[in-house]
Amino acid sequence: MKDELVRALDACDGSALLSLAEDVHYADLAGFYEDLNDEERDFLLKTIGPELATDVVAELPYPLIEEALNHFKPAQLRVLLGNLSDDDRVDVFQVVSEEAQRRFFALLGPRDKELTKSLLKYDEDTAGGRMTTHCGRITADMTVKQAIAVLRRDKDNAETLSRIFVVDAEGRLVGKVRLRDLAFNTWDTPIRDIMEEALEYVLASEDQEEAARILSRYDLIVLPVVDEFHHLLGVITYDDALEILQEESTEDIEKLAAISGEHSEVSYLNTKVVVHYQRRVTWLVGLAFVSIASGYVMFRFNNLLGRAQLLSLFLPMVVAAGGNSGGQAATMVIRAMALGEIGPGNALKVAWKETRTGFFMGISLAIAIALFIVFILPRFPGSGYDFTRLAISVAVAITIQVLSATVLGAMLPLVARAIKLDPAVVSSPSLASTVDVSGMLIYFTTASAILHL
Amino acid sequence: MKDELVRALDACDGSALLSLAEDVHYADLAGFYEDLNDEERDFLLKTIGPELATDVVAELPYPLIEEALNHFKPAQLRVLLGNLSDDDRVDVFQVVSEEAQRRFFALLGPRDKELTKSLLKYDEDTAGGRMTTHCGRITADMTVKQAIAVLRRDKDNAETLSRIFVVDAEGRLVGKVRLRDLAFNTWDTPIRDIMEEALEYVLASEDQEEAARILSRYDLIVLPVVDEFHHLLGVITYDDALEILQEESTEDIEKLAAISGEHSEVSYLNTKVVVHYQRRVTWLVGLAFVSIASGYVMFRFNNLLGRAQLLSLFLPMVVAAGGNSGGQAATMVIRAMALGEIGPGNALKVAWKETRTGFFMGISLAIAIALFIVFILPRFPGSGYDFTRLAISVAVAITIQVLSATVLGAMLPLVARAIKLDPAVVSSPSLASTVDVSGMLIYFTTASAILHL
Repeated sequence: MKDELVRALDACDGSALLSLAEDVHYADLAGFYEDLNDEERDFLLKTIGPELATDVVAELPYPLIEEALNHFKPAQLRVLLGNLSDDDRVDVFQVVSEEAQRRFFALLGPRDKELTKSLLKYDEDTAGGRMTTHCGRITADMTVKQAIAVLRRDKDNAETLSRIFVVDAEGRLVGKVRLRDLAFNTWDTPIRDIMEEALEYVLASEDQEEAARILSRYDLIVLPVVDEFHHLLGVITYDDALEILQEESTEDIEKLAAISGEHSEVSYLNTKVVVHYQRRVTWLVGLAFVSIASGYVMFRFNNLLGRAQLLSLFLPMVVAAGGNSGGQAATMVIRAMALGEIGPGNALKVAWKETRTGFFMGISLAIAIALFIVFILPRFPGSGYDFTRLAISVAVAITIQVLSATVLGAMLPLVARAIKLDPAVVSSPSLASTVDVSGMLIYFTTASAILHL
Repeated sequence: MKDELVRALDACDGSALLSLAEDVHYADLAGFYEDLNDEERDFLLKTIGPELATDVVAELPYPLIEEALNHFKPAQLRVLLGNLSDDDRVDVFQVVSEEAQRRFFALLGPRDKELTKSLLKYDEDTAGGRMTTHCGRITADMTVKQAIAVLRRDKDNAETLSRIFVVDAEGRLVGKVRLRDLAFNTWDTPIRDIMEEALEYVLASEDQEEAARILSRYDLIVLPVVDEFHHLLGVITYDDALEILQEESTEDIEKLAAISGEHSEVSYLNTKVVVHYQRRVTWLVGLAFVSIASGYVMFRFNNLLGRAQLLSLFLPMVVAAGGNSGGQAATMVIRAMALGEIGPGNALKVAWKETRTGFFMGISLAIAIALFIVFILPRFPGSGYDFTRLAISVAVAITIQVLSATVLGAMLPLVARAIKLDPAVVSSPSLASTVDVSGMLIYFTTASAILHL
């Protein structure tokens, strides 16, 4: 399918391109669009026209939307913007430049203007900013027949009719029915008799991640969004939950690797080198300067390395073991927080669990290394060392280093959350750079004490 | 609600507990169960009985399921196992011990036995292993009225009726209709006239992640699962997609932090210390021994550090910059692969992008460090060094280190995928340990050449 699209595009064969584009799912067409150059994008959009382009534009990564819309003339844009579902339209307004915002807004019809303005009130990351106002909405005093008539009128607008919400005269959420309950009951059944309580809902001001977690926890297809007076404002659907949770995972993964800034939305290959560079260089330079602290400790204790050269053999090990174990602990805690399993309130329990885990890991590592130093190392040619003392010294240092790094790694994300920072700012590299310093200090202090250097 | 449950449980007040449990969502009840001790779990399960416990058991983390089922007598178990939906029942059989598998299987009715056996054929991680056979299923020659009659008969069994699938006389998938199309059309409309092609489907043998990606890409509520002859076997639903993608993200995050083994399913706090220990200690010990290679390079070049002590100041920096930049690149590539954006076929493009990104990052870092060495470092007391030469030496080393680590970090996950390994085995710590060695070598070689040591 993709090859045929490419061929039609290369041949500038508009009618072939149009008929192919009509058969392709808009998600695929959006993916195809992303990989094109400016000229090809222009030809594709002009060929398919504003109606077909509506769904494609709604699927595009945010940074590509404004440019895509600028390919259309005002009259076409008016059609396209009018066709967008209200939540997609708000997304568009949230991601384009202010200049484009004004220009696009002027093209909207009076009802869409009002609706868009009311939705733009909500922050992009809240349930309100993510919801659509299009949902099945009936009242309890209707019969099944009346309800079906109402829903049939709106059916093309409703995001999903899997759940239909029942509101009172003031528009407050009072219950829900399933479409199957309408389809399978006699037409004169009153809605009141078949509706259930709508126990799950979310406030419009709530974080969108909270909405996604509720959808996921209760396996909901549609989650109603209400204001503080319980008025039904709109719904968030299962596909939003998927998107939100995927975005969140991607952000956590990237932050854990010390990649800063928003995930670019554009696919990896379509992200420009300068953007890749920008998202990584800040942390890289920052962490490099933090490493000077480790270097300074090494510099200070350099004479120790001169006096007992074998010490250098285990310095990287002790240092790295801290970064590794701390990173493991931080990752476990950050993910458990993202999955809603723990919060700052569990800090003590987490600390106790990680103290034991860190201790056992440290001891295991210490024993393995000590055995290596006592039994394997003497077989290599070298000066006659006191291998037992060296083993004790390295073992003690590595136990302290792993234990302290594990507890620190587990606690820092909880502290970050407690002071309202994103837990994932505690990236593995920043943690590693920190415990590098402590690792050097622990190693040299232990060595000079035990080896009498 | 939770407090009330705790109070009823503490007071051993069965009737209060039962009425509370009936009001709570089963997902919440499962979460509550997880936090109880053995005695409390027994009391809770016996109080709520097998009917209510069915949904709770299906929601439990896998490792808790067998123990939960063992609280019931055979007659109760027969009810509970019979009540489970077929995909949940297969999950149960896949996670319990062989002994329990035999014992539970004997309790099933003849139809459930056959169904379970046929579903157990499919690997746990495939679309077939994840699907439910309960789905709306009609034929094209029915009228809307006949279809509604068929669906009404099965309505309690069907996982979701949002999409109803149309099969031919041999049970091959030929199309789909939406429940709303049935509800909003006249009763004598033939299904043939309102059905659409079912373009999206997945083979039962396909990986479950592929099914999740299709559901997510096309915003589907239900995805049909077919065999190689296009027979409709069952469906996978949106909530499976959510679960699969969340599991996958968690696994990737954990692997990236060198945490091995399956994600435990049990929440962080309910995971025993010994499990936490087991999942982390292997990599920790393995990586520690890899670090001896770095230590050996340091040991070999120790005399260099003795001759130019200031070199130690920048050694940790050069080494860490490799681990950090390599980890960033590996993370970007692994995530892009997980999101289906790139594969081994894009290796050249990725290499070129990362070469440029790595080069610019290396140069930026080099300039920052060189400026620091030339302008800031001389202000501190110390012997008269040739700071310009030192700056050049460190700058050259860090550029090479960042560039090579970035390209290596980006390539290794692609290589892993190409040889059918999980890309996320290339964890940040294992990458860091590898480029630590090259970093040491690069640093000392550059220094001895440029500083004539």
